[in-house]
Amino acid sequence: MKGNKPVVAVVGATGAVGKEMLLILESRDFPVAQVRAFASERSVGEKVPFQGGEIVVEALTEDSFEGIDLALFSAGKDTSEKFTPCAVKAGCVVIDNSNAWRMDTSVPLVVPEVNPDDLKWHRGVIANPNCSTIQMVAVLKPLHDAATIQRIVISTYQAVSESGQKGISELESQILHLMNGQDADTHVYPHQIAFNCLPHIDSFLDNDYTKEEMRMVKETRKILGDDSLRITATACRVPVFYGQSESVNIETAKKLTPKEARAILCQTPGVEVFDNPHENIYPMPFAAVGEDSIFVGRIREDESIERGLNLWIVADNIRKGAALNAVQIAEKVLEMDLLRVS
Amino acid sequence: MKGNKPVVAVVGATGAVGKEMLLILESRDFPVAQVRAFASERSVGEKVPFQGGEIVVEALTEDSFEGIDLALFSAGKDTSEKFTPCAVKAGCVVIDNSNAWRMDTSVPLVVPEVNPDDLKWHRGVIANPNCSTIQMVAVLKPLHDAATIQRIVISTYQAVSESGQKGISELESQILHLMNGQDADTHVYPHQIAFNCLPHIDSFLDNDYTKEEMRMVKETRKILGDDSLRITATACRVPVFYGQSESVNIETAKKLTPKEARAILCQTPGVEVFDNPHENIYPMPFAAVGEDSIFVGRIREDESIERGLNLWIVADNIRKGAALNAVQIAEKVLEMDLLRVS
Repeated sequence: MKGNKPVVAVVGATGAVGKEMLLILESRDFPVAQVRAFASERSVGEKVPFQGGEIVVEALTEDSFEGIDLALFSAGKDTSEKFTPCAVKAGCVVIDNSNAWRMDTSVPLVVPEVNPDDLKWHRGVIANPNCSTIQMVAVLKPLHDAATIQRIVISTYQAVSESGQKGISELESQILHLMNGQDADTHVYPHQIAFNCLPHIDSFLDNDYTKEEMRMVKETRKILGDDSLRITATACRVPVFYGQSESVNIETAKKLTPKEARAILCQTPGVEVFDNPHENIYPMPFAAVGEDSIFVGRIREDESIERGLNLWIVADNIRKGAALNAVQIAEKVLEMDLLRVS
Repeated sequence: MKGNKPVVAVVGATGAVGKEMLLILESRDFPVAQVRAFASERSVGEKVPFQGGEIVVEALTEDSFEGIDLALFSAGKDTSEKFTPCAVKAGCVVIDNSNAWRMDTSVPLVVPEVNPDDLKWHRGVIANPNCSTIQMVAVLKPLHDAATIQRIVISTYQAVSESGQKGISELESQILHLMNGQDADTHVYPHQIAFNCLPHIDSFLDNDYTKEEMRMVKETRKILGDDSLRITATACRVPVFYGQSESVNIETAKKLTPKEARAILCQTPGVEVFDNPHENIYPMPFAAVGEDSIFVGRIREDESIERGLNLWIVADNIRKGAALNAVQIAEKVLEMDLLRVS
């Protein structure tokens, strides 16, 4: 800390999410004494822009965290597993965007609008949930409070930017090749993603669900603090660069009309209701890009059950789905005076 | 009839589905004495290829159906409403791909693998279901027979070719413009479809569902002959040219394991099981293009309920979803000797 402001590190500063973290720290005037940028060996020496100047990217070592108060990690699971213990040992609070610690019972998994109080029991590491989970729980939390959600059936429409720069490049390059009558090479995904849908995100587990699908089940239960929640998910990659859509069907214990749900969601911080379909107003990934809000619309009574709703939820997966949520966690940590490890 | 073979008309012969109908009639050696092609005024005089020769496109009038035994209509609802009565009056059997007659109680709505016996009560018009319905009911029918489906929750990923040539051109042109740094004009859809998802197919009804979503509910009940089936759907357009995907969650009265469901579906005519996710084998629109089969995979136990399954169903929306199903209906009509109006 220098003059009451923290020294902040961004680990993975040259990736899609890391870059966005720097932009968001700057645009939200996050109080910093200094920002340091870390990345893998091949990016060392590169410069990343910040507050009108430039930060030189440093190599990450076990000793990097001396004097750093807060580190935002977005460099993949392996880097998080290797370096967060060093960071914590050096007295740094880590907000980790990977899935290394999300299901660790000693690590809070936080969406600041949903479960800020879980930050109180952090022991140095705070996990940022998966993007698919963040946007869904932010919308479902107030409905759960009002009517007790019993079951959730989810189908996702996920963007290639979730795989980082390499996902973006893969879709771009495949489209250019196909539009020029050439074959589309595949490097990042097991099959062509251009003009295709891949019901396959992350690897498959023994129960034939993907890790991504089970993350939505487990992370949602952990964040909402309700292990009895019954959830099933199908996760699909679609040829969209940015912006993640979810078709979410919920069954509640108490009847909730679409009108009541809309009224609740209109009051929910971080959520915007875009629901006037007869005027062609509904959430879309194209319109969510660059936005901080989570958008919800197509709110309809599920006529197949007594107490059910269908919802369509969209957010910028890089922004609220990753970088923004991490910075918002950091803001809450400062606000709640939780920077020093308890 | 000439020498026991019918005179066949294709109405809408220059459209995406009409062209495919001609190709399929030819490739399946459908027995014809003659094929005549009809389209709107602006296509009259154009030539469409058939069996190595060419058919000159004729204008459609109320007197066009003299001497025609079987007409495949795919020229939109208005044309069907106006001309099918003339065709029937002239003794012609109409297989109609529009949504003009699908919910008419005097018109059978048929997927030949599912409810061929409904053809017996036709009175001149047989309706071809919506593409989203066809691929789903073909997979669900044998599971319904085995375990009685009680509820279905559907989310769709629909291709632009469902909107005909103009949908294909819209996506193509938007991508070219965007890739060249220009704005994407919208003509066919209310918003950009390139790199976007539109939870909006056909127009919105008073209950805030789209007509497309309610078609899946009503057509499925009619084809499976079970008005008690509880169904809810969310229909979404994705930036895919050909091939339609569906995430389908079912709840059954009798327990059905994924293994049992796979065994049943492996025996189902017209359906292929593509379900070895650990080898990256699952249905995809990209791989379904040009195929006659309906593909099903990602068959998993829904762990959120006692007797549930998740399925991922994909088919070529122009082929099995429209043109092929219509020709297969025509084949059944001949086979069952139902060409003359009863």
